Amino acid sequence: MCGIVGYIGKRTAIPVLVEGLKKLEYRGYDSAGVAVLDQQKIVVSKSVGKLVALEEELGEDFSQSCIGIGHTRWATHGRPSFVNAHPHSDCKQDFAVVHNGIIENYLELKDKLIEKGHQFVSETDTEVLAHLVEDFYEGDLKEAVRKVLATIRGSYAMVVLSLRDPDKLVAARKDSPMVVGLGDGEFFVASDITAILNYTRKVYILDDGEMVVVTKEEVKITDFEGNPRTKEVFDVKWDAVAAEKGGYEHFMLKEIHEQPKALRDTMLGRLKDGSVVLEEVDLTLEQLARINKVYIVACGTAWHAGLVGKTLIERWAHLPVEVDIASEFRYRGPIIDDHTLVIVISQSGETADTLAALREAKNRGARVVAVTNVVGSTVSREAHDVIFTWAGPEIAVASTKAYITQLEGMVMLGLYLAQVKGTLPQEKIGEIITALKLIPEQAQEVLNQEDLIKELAQSFVKVEDAFFIGRSLDWAVAMEGALKLKEISYIHAEAYAAGELKHGTLALVTEETPVIALATQRDVYDKTISNVKEVKARDARVIGLTYKGNTNMAKSVDHVIYVPETIDELAPLLTVIPLQLLSYYVSVARGCDVDKPRNLAKSVTVE
Amino acid sequence: MCGIVGYIGKRTAIPVLVEGLKKLEYRGYDSAGVAVLDQQKIVVSKSVGKLVALEEELGEDFSQSCIGIGHTRWATHGRPSFVNAHPHSDCKQDFAVVHNGIIENYLELKDKLIEKGHQFVSETDTEVLAHLVEDFYEGDLKEAVRKVLATIRGSYAMVVLSLRDPDKLVAARKDSPMVVGLGDGEFFVASDITAILNYTRKVYILDDGEMVVVTKEEVKITDFEGNPRTKEVFDVKWDAVAAEKGGYEHFMLKEIHEQPKALRDTMLGRLKDGSVVLEEVDLTLEQLARINKVYIVACGTAWHAGLVGKTLIERWAHLPVEVDIASEFRYRGPIIDDHTLVIVISQSGETADTLAALREAKNRGARVVAVTNVVGSTVSREAHDVIFTWAGPEIAVASTKAYITQLEGMVMLGLYLAQVKGTLPQEKIGEIITALKLIPEQAQEVLNQEDLIKELAQSFVKVEDAFFIGRSLDWAVAMEGALKLKEISYIHAEAYAAGELKHGTLALVTEETPVIALATQRDVYDKTISNVKEVKARDARVIGLTYKGNTNMAKSVDHVIYVPETIDELAPLLTVIPLQLLSYYVSVARGCDVDKPRNLAKSVTVE
Repeated sequence: MCGIVGYIGKRTAIPVLVEGLKKLEYRGYDSAGVAVLDQQKIVVSKSVGKLVALEEELGEDFSQSCIGIGHTRWATHGRPSFVNAHPHSDCKQDFAVVHNGIIENYLELKDKLIEKGHQFVSETDTEVLAHLVEDFYEGDLKEAVRKVLATIRGSYAMVVLSLRDPDKLVAARKDSPMVVGLGDGEFFVASDITAILNYTRKVYILDDGEMVVVTKEEVKITDFEGNPRTKEVFDVKWDAVAAEKGGYEHFMLKEIHEQPKALRDTMLGRLKDGSVVLEEVDLTLEQLARINKVYIVACGTAWHAGLVGKTLIERWAHLPVEVDIASEFRYRGPIIDDHTLVIVISQSGETADTLAALREAKNRGARVVAVTNVVGSTVSREAHDVIFTWAGPEIAVASTKAYITQLEGMVMLGLYLAQVKGTLPQEKIGEIITALKLIPEQAQEVLNQEDLIKELAQSFVKVEDAFFIGRSLDWAVAMEGALKLKEISYIHAEAYAAGELKHGTLALVTEETPVIALATQRDVYDKTISNVKEVKARDARVIGLTYKGNTNMAKSVDHVIYVPETIDELAPLLTVIPLQLLSYYVSVARGCDVDKPRNLAKSVTVE
Repeated sequence: MCGIVGYIGKRTAIPVLVEGLKKLEYRGYDSAGVAVLDQQKIVVSKSVGKLVALEEELGEDFSQSCIGIGHTRWATHGRPSFVNAHPHSDCKQDFAVVHNGIIENYLELKDKLIEKGHQFVSETDTEVLAHLVEDFYEGDLKEAVRKVLATIRGSYAMVVLSLRDPDKLVAARKDSPMVVGLGDGEFFVASDITAILNYTRKVYILDDGEMVVVTKEEVKITDFEGNPRTKEVFDVKWDAVAAEKGGYEHFMLKEIHEQPKALRDTMLGRLKDGSVVLEEVDLTLEQLARINKVYIVACGTAWHAGLVGKTLIERWAHLPVEVDIASEFRYRGPIIDDHTLVIVISQSGETADTLAALREAKNRGARVVAVTNVVGSTVSREAHDVIFTWAGPEIAVASTKAYITQLEGMVMLGLYLAQVKGTLPQEKIGEIITALKLIPEQAQEVLNQEDLIKELAQSFVKVEDAFFIGRSLDWAVAMEGALKLKEISYIHAEAYAAGELKHGTLALVTEETPVIALATQRDVYDKTISNVKEVKARDARVIGLTYKGNTNMAKSVDHVIYVPETIDELAPLLTVIPLQLLSYYVSVARGCDVDKPRNLAKSVTVE
């Protein structure tokens, strides 16, 4: 989510670090910082906001050190602030650490370190790493880092700089990207190839569970146990623009592929011992007993996530939920008081309509839970409780990984409410959690069918209208599928509750109208197939979407896309992926501007 | 709503009456009957169901009388049954009456007649007319009928046959059509020209407040005071098919034009002394105090009426309302118990999805109120309370007059609930009622702009996509406008909350996309205009719809359609009319089959 650059070699490090960070800035960050070794001490410079602020901070008279690390931050643990900006240090300033990802057990570790006398200055999980290195250090940085890796849980890419070992950088990765750039008498470490492309095109791409010691002379890669690993040098053929996209043609495709990771990150540390832990949500049984009404308020894609949330919360937590479009919510005079729970969902946390709804709800005494992707966003600051989605920065205007993590947020919130209220048996919660933990891997399985969906997309090149149908949760995902296709391919797609099509809109269905039929929900499967047959009777081409192993649907439709089996409530986390891929490849095939569709902006900050 | 035929002349009456009624049967009726004078008595034959049942009942050996009246019934007061079928008679069977329309004060009159010793056999309002004639009769049928007319309130077309005046029929009309057909030594009276077109093409068209005495020799038309009226003979040039449509090219256009009458009929007898009287709804303050949740459940157009209902009930009666698509409602496990009020809306009262939802709700202890256009329909029989819309039979598949009366039903139900709960001050209810009473007339004003809308429709001939936007109640009507255009013109129209368009769908808006923007709701008017400007900025052609007298909107859009000013909650009753006319004329211009759009059926009795 964040950006990392490290340098060791013959050049002055700071300009290399700042230039590298600049290459990542298009994603938008909240703070940045660098640390270099200079005259027997670690010099850290940080600033909040854009990189230009860091450059001003550094001035012209900066250190000429040839070793250093840099970081741009996308806040997860701890709000965006000077003190939370990376690099983070230990008590004596002997070590500096930059880190992407999440340390799942950081609170527990922090408590222990505090007991031992360590003093913390920030709210971040990263600072724990610096103190751990300090704690474990016995003369060998690599060994200290190895011990840290054996202690922490979570996902991370990190680089450590040490006053005691001034000739090396030690880096490691697990579930978060990291590369080593190979120069002539100089080396780079970075979270993204983009950051170092101006200096080299030869890189090692670290795998999960690998760590690296980089000196001026050499790069030594091992696993976390210290066993050497041999690596092929990867020759980067991408230009700078392609590199920003991680080699993908568009940000949207990159972000679609980042979903397994985004899903994994978002559940990290939140599913423990068969129950859900939401650190920044603090609803007690007593408080929930007061609640007699839940509103979910959002716009666009986030509103679609809310529709899924409604079903889950009603089904699991037995609370009545109404989902409102934010621009309508405020003006329709909803009945809100201190018995009301309002859930707002916004990727950016700055959506004007949603923010206005949040304020209105708060003014009228409601408890507000926000689901957002941006720590420190206005929505996250003003809500009583927050569930952060850890999707990382989303660049494409059409939301994909933010949406899927919003869905995941809804699943976890639904379970959390059921858990607090005691409306689901513990073993049922356990079952759902077990199924949820499988989802990132299953999402990857769905992504592996990319070629098949790409081929299917070719048949949409001349299509002007399409319908997405489904019942229950499938309907909610159908809406998102239709919106994606609209946004980026300009096909007039529209979603319908499968049973509703015959009440008017069926008039538009002809053999030229593809219909995408979602049929995962087992309790309404037969009814959905009946509706599919109504559509087939009008000669429409029907693409079905159901669980792998269902051999029945293929008899009623023209093509079937399969997703791995899961419990019905989690199906949206899988079914949306082929719809995203379909929209993407249709858009490409039609020659549309995938990442910047006409008329749209990423974050809508007007009403 | 019902069908009337009367005959006096040289032919055997019964075949003339049955043939005439058959011409009206395409509208679908629930019972039929005839009465003739035969050998010093009135012989009445009736049957439930289609006319073929009446023909069987009459057999081959029927009366050869040359004077009689016939009727096919579309139930309003009293369910469809043998005993409620017309003609109705007095105690001594001296008089027989057929009647269309509604006698508003029939209950009061019935009580008085019962006190005087009259014995009633049916639940109809019509039977009151027969007993009143009996009561007033002093040797002159015309005088007796005149006295009846001075006593009753409501809307009606009626014909009276009398044993005491065996040589004449007396008929009268107020707010319900009636014509007199002129033959050679024979005359006909009928509610529809279609019924008598096989016998004559020369007719008198009665005006409101006119009555007529027809003998074998002559036709005497007077006003209700007895002053003679002179009439032009109208020469019918229509063929039988055109006649069915009352001279309109399509049923849909006829039904659009019937809306002022449908609106008037549906409020008849229900707005008294500044309060709402709903005879077949019996919700006490005690019962309403138990209700903590209202669901409105419906499909298609009726669902759109429900969306308006939600806002009205929440705003006026302070009850939280959720609107569900019937096919989704049952399966999503809504939280329903005996604190729940469920409102189902169905024109036919037979919609399978809606009926299933009703049964599910009843099973789970909810109180169910039905809004339906068909007395005796399954929905009306199974619901606890009913509000009948008195739109009369709707033939066109695309609903117009049924929808508008469903809206009116929502208005009256909202007021009723507020009245019982005491959530609106009496004078506020009075104000709304005063405004509501103006609506039929204002609806006529909107219809008078037909030519303007017809012209506008020409610009839609090549359009393939259109958007309808609005906020709050305007949004609900926008959905109905979009559905109409979809259903009959096959243009892919879609409605959006005006503030939501920018969250994705704006990508589809180009200069080729007309956008119809509804802007009547005063509290969100400025916000709506901001959204209109966003759309204009993408070069879309925008057609505005607002109140007459608003000179501001014309500055922001390309065309403006105006409706008369009313209070915002009633605006849907006016704004939907231009949208219906637009759809109609676009459909005609595109050469579509207006009344029978492809793939659709009038009443959807499958899930």
